[in-house]
Amino acid sequence: MNITILGSGAWGTSLGRLLCLNGQSVTVWGLPEELAEMSRTSRNERGLPGVLLPPEMKFEADWGRAMLDAECVVVAVPSKVFREVTQDLFRYNGVVVSVTKGIEYDTGLTMTGILRQQAPHARAVALSGPTFALEVAKDMPTAIVAASTDLEAAQAVQQLFHRPTFRVYTSGDPLGVELGGAVKNVVAIAAGVGDGLGFGDNSKAALVTRGIVEMRRLGMACGAQGETFGGLSGIGDLTVTCFSRLSRNRAFGEKLGRGESLEKILAESKVLAEGYPTARSAWQLAKNHKVATPIIDEAYQLLYEGKNVARALLDLTSRESKPE
Amino acid sequence: MNITILGSGAWGTSLGRLLCLNGQSVTVWGLPEELAEMSRTSRNERGLPGVLLPPEMKFEADWGRAMLDAECVVVAVPSKVFREVTQDLFRYNGVVVSVTKGIEYDTGLTMTGILRQQAPHARAVALSGPTFALEVAKDMPTAIVAASTDLEAAQAVQQLFHRPTFRVYTSGDPLGVELGGAVKNVVAIAAGVGDGLGFGDNSKAALVTRGIVEMRRLGMACGAQGETFGGLSGIGDLTVTCFSRLSRNRAFGEKLGRGESLEKILAESKVLAEGYPTARSAWQLAKNHKVATPIIDEAYQLLYEGKNVARALLDLTSRESKPE
Repeated sequence: MNITILGSGAWGTSLGRLLCLNGQSVTVWGLPEELAEMSRTSRNERGLPGVLLPPEMKFEADWGRAMLDAECVVVAVPSKVFREVTQDLFRYNGVVVSVTKGIEYDTGLTMTGILRQQAPHARAVALSGPTFALEVAKDMPTAIVAASTDLEAAQAVQQLFHRPTFRVYTSGDPLGVELGGAVKNVVAIAAGVGDGLGFGDNSKAALVTRGIVEMRRLGMACGAQGETFGGLSGIGDLTVTCFSRLSRNRAFGEKLGRGESLEKILAESKVLAEGYPTARSAWQLAKNHKVATPIIDEAYQLLYEGKNVARALLDLTSRESKPE
Repeated sequence: MNITILGSGAWGTSLGRLLCLNGQSVTVWGLPEELAEMSRTSRNERGLPGVLLPPEMKFEADWGRAMLDAECVVVAVPSKVFREVTQDLFRYNGVVVSVTKGIEYDTGLTMTGILRQQAPHARAVALSGPTFALEVAKDMPTAIVAASTDLEAAQAVQQLFHRPTFRVYTSGDPLGVELGGAVKNVVAIAAGVGDGLGFGDNSKAALVTRGIVEMRRLGMACGAQGETFGGLSGIGDLTVTCFSRLSRNRAFGEKLGRGESLEKILAESKVLAEGYPTARSAWQLAKNHKVATPIIDEAYQLLYEGKNVARALLDLTSRESKPE
């Protein structure tokens, strides 16, 4: 099958490699300089250091040409450009897989929500879970969820991506899967702040426990299913993002906790930590749905209102709310 | 209040220190050589390196004398000696707090279950959560659960232990709290095996997600409440034990995964990883209740039946069961 990956970052490239290994015909579209580099070296050294890409992987910098014969599209771009990148999909009626984790600020929509507007005839599937791109590119055992209200489309995605080291499960709750994947990045920033301040693992465990409750509460208020947050895309993704040294969002928070300024961190980030924009979107979403979200609130205040990080985390720690 | 701590290890000493800071009169009973060392140096250097113990903390090697005026007893000994250490509590009618995480093999009882037999007139409370002893001894923020079918007793324990950096919540489900705390050590051994084999964080996230499902399923079959496993003593304790470098049970598994022999690891362990005996007890418990527990089963086979560790983890990874 002809599959077009929109996005030339680590995750898009890693999934493109995997689809090539599964015998699919893969074309990657993205930033021209990244495509040229990958085409020339067969590597994405910044995103996937040490990984050799399959020789049959194709690169195409022109969006229209990249999409020409696409039977399936995978969107793997940062959430802030998701709407723009998918703007010409209005007539597309194949399967579109979103692997982007975020919430649009203006609309409160997840990525498949944006797809419903941008590509109303497409069959949208969210593919999300605890999946560091580099580990997937090294064929380390990974499990992930393909979620769609169109169960056949979710099963088609499962078939396309499934490998012995990449187990794909299906879910009928894309909203829950996407909200879990997005909001966990905000909790991970808070976890990282704790790391930077030297708060320790006991404190992080309490944060994770409260985090999953908060994610579920917000998700259910938005119409997601509560049990989804107990799965791979909820608890699984949250725990690994809060504890792993590989997590970009946790590392972002750790720098803040150590006293680096937000401006400096943002200026030095080659890839923006998705938890940063998501903190604002999730805060807005919670406000609209009148849901209590202490972790998101503190993250929002320290990221957007200049609140002192130590004060924010101490306020969070001292709130009397029962964590279970 | 006069409080006697039975157990001179890291956790008993750390909690004793905390109770002293809360103004309680604390006597620690335990191994004579450990008590003598603490009495002489005001430190428990092996268990709590760098921590100075309060000068008012008392040490008593004679069980009867240690218990003489006890208005509350905290039992902090390894599970394998819990029954023996509590054998003379038959007439005791005060509050007994178990902070030991384990399941008795012969009976399938948790520690408060043993207390119901050994101290039928006492008010048993389980105190459990994601709590590394050293972090508590350094006043790093920590949250924990006091659980009892006697809610007043749980609240009394909450009052005794609560501090700004040590938040105690209450629960009416001691069985769920204790089974979570015990079984998570078995999952942590499996997580450590994965670390030793180089499986990565994606794989660990999937294991943790399945682990909490398995813990809940076994717990509910034994009569515990499902939601307890979503709290601090369940998800909270499981995640930190599987991910933290401080976890003894994870480290035990990591050595196995790296190829060290079980005999060597057991011989060199100064303190036994509780997950080792618990793997056998939990396996037995699951068999008796006819509950499917793939993680516990693989841990049991590699620890007690000589199964190759890589084989055990691969078998676990390749099982088709849905992780959520």
